[in-house]
Amino acid sequence: MQQEVLRTLITNNDSKIIYLIMDGLGGLPHELGGKTELETANTPNMNKLAAEGILGLLDPIGYGITPGSGPAHLALFGYDPVEDNVGRGILSALGVDFPVTEKDVCARLNFCTIDTAGNVTDRRAGRIPTDLNEKLCKKLQESISLSDDIEFFMRTESEHRALLVIRGEGLGGNINDTDSQKTGVPSLIAEGKDESSKKTAKYVNEFLVKAKEVLRDDHPANFILARGFAKNEPLLTMEERFGIKCAAIAQYPMYRGLARLVGMDVLPRPETYDAMYEQLAENYDAYDFFFIHFKKTDSYGEDGNFEAKVKVIEEVDNWVKKLDQLNPEVLVITGDHSTPAVMKSHSWHPVPALLHCRNGFGRIDHTSSFGEVQCGQGGLGRMLMKNIILEALASAERIMKFGA
Amino acid sequence: MQQEVLRTLITNNDSKIIYLIMDGLGGLPHELGGKTELETANTPNMNKLAAEGILGLLDPIGYGITPGSGPAHLALFGYDPVEDNVGRGILSALGVDFPVTEKDVCARLNFCTIDTAGNVTDRRAGRIPTDLNEKLCKKLQESISLSDDIEFFMRTESEHRALLVIRGEGLGGNINDTDSQKTGVPSLIAEGKDESSKKTAKYVNEFLVKAKEVLRDDHPANFILARGFAKNEPLLTMEERFGIKCAAIAQYPMYRGLARLVGMDVLPRPETYDAMYEQLAENYDAYDFFFIHFKKTDSYGEDGNFEAKVKVIEEVDNWVKKLDQLNPEVLVITGDHSTPAVMKSHSWHPVPALLHCRNGFGRIDHTSSFGEVQCGQGGLGRMLMKNIILEALASAERIMKFGA
Repeated sequence: MQQEVLRTLITNNDSKIIYLIMDGLGGLPHELGGKTELETANTPNMNKLAAEGILGLLDPIGYGITPGSGPAHLALFGYDPVEDNVGRGILSALGVDFPVTEKDVCARLNFCTIDTAGNVTDRRAGRIPTDLNEKLCKKLQESISLSDDIEFFMRTESEHRALLVIRGEGLGGNINDTDSQKTGVPSLIAEGKDESSKKTAKYVNEFLVKAKEVLRDDHPANFILARGFAKNEPLLTMEERFGIKCAAIAQYPMYRGLARLVGMDVLPRPETYDAMYEQLAENYDAYDFFFIHFKKTDSYGEDGNFEAKVKVIEEVDNWVKKLDQLNPEVLVITGDHSTPAVMKSHSWHPVPALLHCRNGFGRIDHTSSFGEVQCGQGGLGRMLMKNIILEALASAERIMKFGA
Repeated sequence: MQQEVLRTLITNNDSKIIYLIMDGLGGLPHELGGKTELETANTPNMNKLAAEGILGLLDPIGYGITPGSGPAHLALFGYDPVEDNVGRGILSALGVDFPVTEKDVCARLNFCTIDTAGNVTDRRAGRIPTDLNEKLCKKLQESISLSDDIEFFMRTESEHRALLVIRGEGLGGNINDTDSQKTGVPSLIAEGKDESSKKTAKYVNEFLVKAKEVLRDDHPANFILARGFAKNEPLLTMEERFGIKCAAIAQYPMYRGLARLVGMDVLPRPETYDAMYEQLAENYDAYDFFFIHFKKTDSYGEDGNFEAKVKVIEEVDNWVKKLDQLNPEVLVITGDHSTPAVMKSHSWHPVPALLHCRNGFGRIDHTSSFGEVQCGQGGLGRMLMKNIILEALASAERIMKFGA
């Protein structure tokens, strides 16, 4: 449904919607015919909700497409994960909690190794340790100043990865990567594809020339490759689109940043799962919608640690029980994408999803436990992830009738 | 997802994808509450794959739309069956194995009967026998020559059906049907809708005037109706779109032609099902993707022969077992459309589909036999046919991550 039509139908009330997101929740069986992580986990509380609610499968982007965290979360929040996709540089800034302004162009950097002829010999400089990265960022920040009062900021991500932000008036972000993704050749010169981006490219090249000079005696990290130049193109906020005041409860910078991108209030970083619940309870009256993000399901999936992923799901199941005290009208439990431990990576498999309503306006199905196979038989069906917000909003009676 | 985005995500590896297509596979029960052809068939091998894999239902074009073989196969191959649809004239050419060039405009002909006033009295000339059709085609080919060195070719299809190809430089295919689909009125004059098509129309009309003269003493086939004028608009090949080298193993010209349209190598015509397997085994290392086409399920469906269609499915089930020897990473078993024996025709019903992975990266569902009812409960869900290629490519780890 066109966004313009939807917006005319949005209404407000006192209902609460909770999105409980286990990152990388979807999985695969250990062996042919076996059970997935979610199916293996002992989840009496989510199973009760499954019996009372309705299940389905969500495709983050489309059939067969494996998403990164950026587009997957945008889909969860009801945005188009391709059209509204966020540039790599912006994601790097979000990942280190850098407060991006409208004057900023962001890029993801690699420290790299070049030989005396200037050819790249290692695109990751042997994956230097993070503390060396921090020292080099500090040295570059202190040694370099750019012409015309243009500011720049460097931030360490981890190992060879860093963030570069160029700040100034009228800077565009439409610039090629200087990383050619190849070795044995020099890195590329930055070129802007429009007037304002040409301006930025000039300062990027100035920065790179000076950085090469500053790093000339360092080894193996003696130069820098840049990619994913991007400005922050502001999206309509969730409040503007859906009329809901949103709060994010998340421990990891990237997800806190993604929530900020869509206009959520991001509550102070909670140290523990208990602290996450306390934040929710304390702020319960002040917001309509809560995005609650659990990261470890994805981390253990990426590690290939099936058992640890199962354990985290069981911890979250315990956490879920406490929601009885708050009695939210609408609860969605799902993930942003699948991260099967057997693959040690994100995957294309659709994500199990549970929709539970306590206001009497939720359909049910015949399912009685939360898992991939049951979700495949669920009454929600298989749907694009960006549409689950509409089911949640409607269940909360926040979408009015279309047409007479 | 936009085709441009997908193309940037395609990658290559050693995996094999097999598409086993039973033409017109989908069916209906003999009587209310009974079993379909596929459900009636004894298919222990496909049932085993169903238990190990995942089922779903594929809509070739959209809800309620009955497809012809052309669009249905394009959908199987991942093309849009409406946008990329192939003109009727081109399908006729494929059906008789005519090698279409870029100079050709093709049309489907009917031999028809006209009265002395020139009005059409029978659009099919009493369905003349095929050997008479052949004689008439030969007579027309030998008697007529067109002005300006324009060439033409006639080929018999069957009964009253034939192919006309007009060949020359700069000929367009945007021409109305001369068949008005009515009797009691004259056939229509060909008119081109653009400059190059006006040029073609001139030769078409010249051909028709001369044909009327040549056939004046024949009866009942004393004239010709033409429809579906089309040039061959080359499609991007499957290799260009998906990075896979494709081979087709098929007995019937139309399907061999459709495979050629999307850039597959078409292996020599196999006489038997055993020969089809031998071709597959012999060429297994040389290709990434195999399209294997079994025709008889459709033919018996069109004949209304429920039992014979069941038998063919059982023969194919036997054939399927041999695939264990090749151990392909990804196997898709489905049809191009439904041809229920009780309807004696193609139908709109979505087509049962089975996806089976031997690399450990396939989801399963609770289904354990291959049939329409089970497919309706399968974990793949109900999807547009053009998307099944994406599930197959992803399962073969041939699509990279989108976004960071």
